[in-house]
Amino acid sequence: MEGAALTRRGLLVGIGAVGGAGAMYAAMGALGLAPSQQDKEFVAPAPGDFSLRGKGAATVVILGAGVAGLTAAYELGKAGYDCTLLEARNKAGGRNLTLRGGDRLPQLNGPSQEVKFGEGVYFNAGPGRIAPWMVTLDYCRELGIPIETFVNNNAAAYVHTSGQTVRARTARADIYGYVAELLAKATNVGALDKTITKDDQERLLDFLRRFGDLGPKLDYEGSPRRGFMKYPALDTGTPIAPPGTLHQILAAGTGRAITNDFGYDQATPMFQPVGGMDAIVAKLTEAVGEDRIRTGTKVTKITTMADGVEVAWDGGTIKADYCVAALPPHLLAKIPHNLGAQVTTALKTPIPVAAGKIGLEYGRRWWELEDRIYGGVTETDLDITHIWYPSYGYHSERGLLVGYYNSERNAELYGALTPEDRRRRALTQGKKIHGDKYRQHLLSSVSIAWDRQEHIQGGWVRWPDFDSSFTFLQRPAGRVYFAGDWLTHLIAWQAGAMESARGAVTQLHQRVLQSP
Amino acid sequence: MEGAALTRRGLLVGIGAVGGAGAMYAAMGALGLAPSQQDKEFVAPAPGDFSLRGKGAATVVILGAGVAGLTAAYELGKAGYDCTLLEARNKAGGRNLTLRGGDRLPQLNGPSQEVKFGEGVYFNAGPGRIAPWMVTLDYCRELGIPIETFVNNNAAAYVHTSGQTVRARTARADIYGYVAELLAKATNVGALDKTITKDDQERLLDFLRRFGDLGPKLDYEGSPRRGFMKYPALDTGTPIAPPGTLHQILAAGTGRAITNDFGYDQATPMFQPVGGMDAIVAKLTEAVGEDRIRTGTKVTKITTMADGVEVAWDGGTIKADYCVAALPPHLLAKIPHNLGAQVTTALKTPIPVAAGKIGLEYGRRWWELEDRIYGGVTETDLDITHIWYPSYGYHSERGLLVGYYNSERNAELYGALTPEDRRRRALTQGKKIHGDKYRQHLLSSVSIAWDRQEHIQGGWVRWPDFDSSFTFLQRPAGRVYFAGDWLTHLIAWQAGAMESARGAVTQLHQRVLQSP
Repeated sequence: MEGAALTRRGLLVGIGAVGGAGAMYAAMGALGLAPSQQDKEFVAPAPGDFSLRGKGAATVVILGAGVAGLTAAYELGKAGYDCTLLEARNKAGGRNLTLRGGDRLPQLNGPSQEVKFGEGVYFNAGPGRIAPWMVTLDYCRELGIPIETFVNNNAAAYVHTSGQTVRARTARADIYGYVAELLAKATNVGALDKTITKDDQERLLDFLRRFGDLGPKLDYEGSPRRGFMKYPALDTGTPIAPPGTLHQILAAGTGRAITNDFGYDQATPMFQPVGGMDAIVAKLTEAVGEDRIRTGTKVTKITTMADGVEVAWDGGTIKADYCVAALPPHLLAKIPHNLGAQVTTALKTPIPVAAGKIGLEYGRRWWELEDRIYGGVTETDLDITHIWYPSYGYHSERGLLVGYYNSERNAELYGALTPEDRRRRALTQGKKIHGDKYRQHLLSSVSIAWDRQEHIQGGWVRWPDFDSSFTFLQRPAGRVYFAGDWLTHLIAWQAGAMESARGAVTQLHQRVLQSP
Repeated sequence: MEGAALTRRGLLVGIGAVGGAGAMYAAMGALGLAPSQQDKEFVAPAPGDFSLRGKGAATVVILGAGVAGLTAAYELGKAGYDCTLLEARNKAGGRNLTLRGGDRLPQLNGPSQEVKFGEGVYFNAGPGRIAPWMVTLDYCRELGIPIETFVNNNAAAYVHTSGQTVRARTARADIYGYVAELLAKATNVGALDKTITKDDQERLLDFLRRFGDLGPKLDYEGSPRRGFMKYPALDTGTPIAPPGTLHQILAAGTGRAITNDFGYDQATPMFQPVGGMDAIVAKLTEAVGEDRIRTGTKVTKITTMADGVEVAWDGGTIKADYCVAALPPHLLAKIPHNLGAQVTTALKTPIPVAAGKIGLEYGRRWWELEDRIYGGVTETDLDITHIWYPSYGYHSERGLLVGYYNSERNAELYGALTPEDRRRRALTQGKKIHGDKYRQHLLSSVSIAWDRQEHIQGGWVRWPDFDSSFTFLQRPAGRVYFAGDWLTHLIAWQAGAMESARGAVTQLHQRVLQSP
């Protein structure tokens, strides 16, 4: 393909008028120009940026139409490549799976589940939230997917540990209060005299008073921050029972729950596409072209050659200039190939991790009406780990809780059960927090065990160490490039899949531009 | 009015079939039954609850069509009262004021401002957020007003204190880290041996490690929680500059900012009506009946009598069985009345507090695109106090920041300036945090000084003490009842106005039911 195939007008539109990095990139790809530094960045272009679809300099076969595969196809398509995606499952998206009424969820060696949710109710069975710094939000912007807040931290949600249930705001106020008191008193008896100056001790005390809401004698005696039985209005309100002793608060072990959103990936606020996470799949699919995705196509062999790659499946083969393998590593490792023993060893290094979720649909949003919990997460030390309250459809008739979202051993435990037993167990656990209403008003449920999803077989992977196998697979084997969240430090996040895809296609594109 | 006027079917629908507290209340009002305990609660009925509008046992004149006045009229209307609202301003809503393109904002002794915002941009010049426990949300539910999250805490927003700007997540990680280190080390040198057991010390250390993200030697050495220059993806990311010393962190004085959302009224998550806070005014007005609100009607005299109340304005009078006075106390105090000297004294007790806001409309949402701030608040020790980023319209073309939201002295300072000078000053301050882009892309602005709004003249009031004047005014003076956020412990919140209105009309209704 030649640059001459581009009209003068096309070039003007692409480079002059719009001028985004994506446009420059695409134009250079089409024209065979040498790559610049800017190419490496894949700056997300604004909507309306120029695209060179169909003018590609090479053909690419992409294995897996999950988020990594779709992103690779999307970005390559913008740069003019001719892509074909092979997807073993019967639809694109991979773990980005949103279930709605009328859907059917099969599982390996077990019964299928019919999804019976009412109109407007959905269940993000895979990824459910996006941190604002993640590239996932750029794709939402670029693809025109409306977003809304995902409430990841709710002071009104509960913390359930050691058999006790308290509001998150109460647990936080109490442990902060006592920590502040202990440090303030240690300061006042001179324990820090050798460490910090008197002036800094004053500043520290000023902070601790605010932080713990301490009384004038630096005692923690409870605080309005803990919440109320009846909130202040005409009178000053009715307080909840006073805090336990320091010993009781420490023994309750609420620390993990309290600090759950401290990490850079979980910090408030987070976001979700309006109407379900699979809006990302739908829009990427639309942009890539649905006709480029061959579903129900399970790859059986990968052969890299001097002049291209050949990929076979039951009943066919495809030849392309390059391949992007965006399958889970543990499944990719089982496909016969000629990429070398080191590739197989490397692919076998990351360990699949079980993860599971249950969606519980209720006919009444009792968590809003009675508990005044609007979105957010209750943290527990039960095997359900978390309960998520919906961050959408506030005040509507029905609503869907995530009754467990767990991983590793807890997910294996639930995954081994029948869907009915999973629900029963989830309800038994949730009832410890919410009482009988957790069973009442339940309309339907669906549960997923990601290790029992065909062609995925795991929630995500864990690298024992981000060792040489990890960096080895970030480079191509022959004409085959690897992509997936598993090749990043953002494992289990869509942003990982997207960043990995960008990395792979950047390398691929540079190679194409540099080849004679 | 007689119970006989109700049909049997009406009773069945109202009490039997629906059976909510609102229905019971209304039916009892119509039938003249004695009140029960349940009456006092005004449980918000579900949409579709029975209503006795037009069957009222008494006429009520309500002074002020702010949120308190509207709520009083709405609840009285549901119970069958015949209400008339007198509003001095040219529209209902009071401080619940949302400004949009085409609006005009006058001010006392100063120029009017034309609002030039583009389509879809709005500015909540008064209340902007709702805590989930507040009755305001019940009214949103009952009136069918869709709500969405108001992001009140954003780890990506900034803290600007002592001339330094850091991300909230960084400020928090650093102060938590050092506090944890100090207490952990004090514990380890035995400073707490007399206070808590060894077992509890272990539990405390376990918490402190999580809380501060401490290293193995209990040192705080920074943390990924602080954020990154470049977030982890293909590699482990590029960290930001390491934390300052403990002295530097304490001297920065970020404590107020860090603890800003610890209170029960500010805790995450908070909410807002979709499309602007004045949806509450619009829906209440619609429910009350716009024809019941007489705008441009400034009350000049209030006379309570044995058989009713007479209220006069320039050009007219109205007589009713009862009156609910829902005006600001400092304005009410100036209206001639025969309610007694103690009422005047009490009304003069609360002190009006200045409050101001500026809405800055930009043609580019640079805070999302460049700073990755999606909603939330930057806390400062500047005279602007806060910068609010919009929690709606994410990724759209235009957007509106609240460039200051301040009160007391800072609000008086800005309020005394011309609108141009307020903007200039707000931009100068905001630039200290956001740099030149804070001036670029600015399209228009509108600022409000609530102490310069006619017939309101204050952001809210402050009681020197919630003393006998406060409780005195919670009871009627003759046939006049008082209502407003200023008569609650939820001052400056719409929930206060609503709760006060409920309290007043509950008393009024009980009196009506008990009168012969």
